[in-house]
Amino acid sequence: MDFQSCFPIWDKLNTDQQNRILGSLVSPHVKKGTVLHNGSMDCTGLLLIKSGQLRVYILSEEGREITLYRLFDIDMCLFSASCMLRSIQFDVTIAAEKDTEFWVVPAEVYKGITEESAPAANYTNELMASRFSDVMWLMEQIMWKSLDRRVASFLLEEASIEGTGKLKITHETIANHLGSHREVITRMLRYFQNEGMVRLSRGVIEITDTDKLEELSAS
Amino acid sequence: MDFQSCFPIWDKLNTDQQNRILGSLVSPHVKKGTVLHNGSMDCTGLLLIKSGQLRVYILSEEGREITLYRLFDIDMCLFSASCMLRSIQFDVTIAAEKDTEFWVVPAEVYKGITEESAPAANYTNELMASRFSDVMWLMEQIMWKSLDRRVASFLLEEASIEGTGKLKITHETIANHLGSHREVITRMLRYFQNEGMVRLSRGVIEITDTDKLEELSAS
Repeated sequence: MDFQSCFPIWDKLNTDQQNRILGSLVSPHVKKGTVLHNGSMDCTGLLLIKSGQLRVYILSEEGREITLYRLFDIDMCLFSASCMLRSIQFDVTIAAEKDTEFWVVPAEVYKGITEESAPAANYTNELMASRFSDVMWLMEQIMWKSLDRRVASFLLEEASIEGTGKLKITHETIANHLGSHREVITRMLRYFQNEGMVRLSRGVIEITDTDKLEELSAS
Repeated sequence: MDFQSCFPIWDKLNTDQQNRILGSLVSPHVKKGTVLHNGSMDCTGLLLIKSGQLRVYILSEEGREITLYRLFDIDMCLFSASCMLRSIQFDVTIAAEKDTEFWVVPAEVYKGITEESAPAANYTNELMASRFSDVMWLMEQIMWKSLDRRVASFLLEEASIEGTGKLKITHETIANHLGSHREVITRMLRYFQNEGMVRLSRGVIEITDTDKLEELSAS
């Protein structure tokens, strides 16, 4: 697997642009938990994930968090290059949720290429539109969907990502994904347990009735 | 005032592109209350507002609303051309809050130009980044700010737009801007009245203590 075959607009760049990317490309590994981007302080560049998992979230002044979206293999991470987009006036944090390997096209290299290449600029546009759609989906969840349904959806999504119904996740972590408080999540999970949808034990939430959880999530 | 002088990247387009815009440009007037764009059903094009005021909002299945942002003189409206952005997977409604005059560059004309012009594609990018920032601001308000502070901010914003502290606005309309319910807004406004910040009368909310309202809004 090489960068060229994973970068969707590679063939639309000219040789000079391709060489500028290849000449500046770096390919770091980071451990689970590493913060890759922290608001406006960083501007690493455009990331292309080889393998692993990133979480993009916002932080309140009081330290509360909410997950905007997650990125997986072959996904592009645009906001790690947010400095190249003058009109982006918000800060996100990007952290590795698993050990992650990725390529980085430095921000100034990618900026230079988008300034001269309509395909690159339009590709950036499509990336931003995708993330914008993720955030609008989240906004609709928050506005119109009650927390029980959001917790149900989160558990199902997590089970699908991990490929198991036995989730090693703390109530605090769920609260940080959903912009809620640990106590509220604990209460909700106990209610789910009473309803037979999950079984709670130390550090593990086991899904015991996927159908019922799906029904709640879709209601 | 002509389109050329209001469209920021006019000088970066070539003569052919400029002629395609001028040859397809239309300039409608709409009355207050007109719905200009209704989810994925419409794809008018890129709008440039000559004068007036547009409101961009989302609607829940139950008919609840929340305002994403508003557009004023010389603002560009991109989501009225959302069909040209493949990766935009959400629907917004755009309505005139005042009698509004604007230019329309048809979506297929603007799409054709962004495909060949890096400056046009980058400009579209900046527009999207601005609206994305508006929505992220709103998301942070909803997540971290209590409703009393959001109502205070809304009244101050409204007074600034209208140039008067005597606001002719219903409690239902405020609820629709903030994604809340009429009863909740009425209760909040009565609390504001008890605190001496506003005076309520039939169809009018009068701001009586701007400082106190500003203090609450910023808290």
